[in-house]
Amino acid sequence: MAIIEVSVNPIGTGSPSVSSFIARAVKVLEKEKDIKHELTPMSTIVEGDLGQLLNLVQKMHETAFQAGAMRAITLIKIDDRRDKTSTMSSKLESLKRHLAQQ
Amino acid sequence: MAIIEVSVNPIGTGSPSVSSFIARAVKVLEKEKDIKHELTPMSTIVEGDLGQLLNLVQKMHETAFQAGAMRAITLIKIDDRRDKTSTMSSKLESLKRHLAQQ
Amino acid sequence: MAIIEVSVNPIGTGSPSVSSFIARAVKVLEKEKDIKHELTPMSTIVEGDLGQLLNLVQKMHETAFQAGAMRAITLIKIDDRRDKTSTMSSKLESLKRHLAQQ
Amino acid sequence: MAIIEVSVNPIGTGSPSVSSFIARAVKVLEKEKDIKHELTPMSTIVEGDLGQLLNLVQKMHETAFQAGAMRAITLIKIDDRRDKTSTMSSKLESLKRHLAQQ
Repeated sequence: MAIIEVSVNPIGTGSPSVSSFIARAVKVLEKEKDIKHELTPMSTIVEGDLGQLLNLVQKMHETAFQAGAMRAITLIKIDDRRDKTSTMSSKLESLKRHLAQQ
Repeated sequence: MAIIEVSVNPIGTGSPSVSSFIARAVKVLEKEKDIKHELTPMSTIVEGDLGQLLNLVQKMHETAFQAGAMRAITLIKIDDRRDKTSTMSSKLESLKRHLAQQ
Repeated sequence: MAIIEVSVNPIGTGSPSVSSFIARAVKVLEKEKDIKHELTPMSTIVEGDLGQLLNLVQKMHETAFQAGAMRAITLIKIDDRRDKTSTMSSKLESLKRHLAQQ
Repeated sequence: MAIIEVSVNPIGTGSPSVSSFIARAVKVLEKEKDIKHELTPMSTIVEGDLGQLLNLVQKMHETAFQAGAMRAITLIKIDDRRDKTSTMSSKLESLKRHLAQQ
């Protein structure tokens, strides 16, 4: 299982407001009942099987064009750990534990 | 005011666990009482004056070496909007409003 | 056709030198005779069909584990333009033209 | 000495073509005679003192607003290695050496 962070950035849309574009991309994830995702002010974080996640990223990217953009820059960061299961919540808990100790 | 997302990735440390390094970087932000930050499973998001934020990013980056790493890859995404004030919470609220409408 | 930038970053390998890992990832692209790629000091840039590129990215990412890493952070930036054909060389030429004019 | 990769992405400009914006950002670097930079189809790579580079990044980012954008998303990747001097050309040579061997 991998964790990915993704943001779809439509380019040249004529307005600095792009939330409606981002909402369309996030809708792709809301339809996937078995895939966990989390919204942040800068991106969306998703955990699951990497191949499946990359397919979803492509669908999310595609929504920018369906919404009328002629260009999109999509950013993806994959965090994949194989020595133990790592999840969005276990990562954050581990960080908070270390913050409390230091 | 800008919003930035930052993650400090120590390279070659000998263990896939890097939370202790990340905690050190986040400690830099905890000392800045007038700067708002938010932890996510993939990065830290900070809002404030851009020049001040970039200074903090450099300090955060430096903690990896103070903790013993010999290499660090630090990722920064700046989101800067000048037509109106944009904050971490206003961005997320705007996205959720669009999600509810679609 | 899309252009993507990709870098595979093995985590916790015990040495700050990671070129041997990166070389393995790039080898995946060298086997794809119909896919154009370019090496830069910070990443690899590839152009082609987006679905095919994301499959290749997954293969590139996988090489880090085949080479012994237990964690990898892979970064991908997709630049996809639909109003006209954009290639690695056309993008660079357009930028140089603007630089000469300004 | 650090190596950074930077791209300034103006948002909402009304056209998918953004080369003129990028050219302005790159002009900032052309004025810095003692700083080495390299253009790629996806970003600009710069090597030098990290503090100085982050100042330049802020100036590059600012050019988007000077050129009329109301929002810009700027991406920065810092690669900083302290066990030995690493440059844009030494990184690429090391990668090519490993590619030749594998």
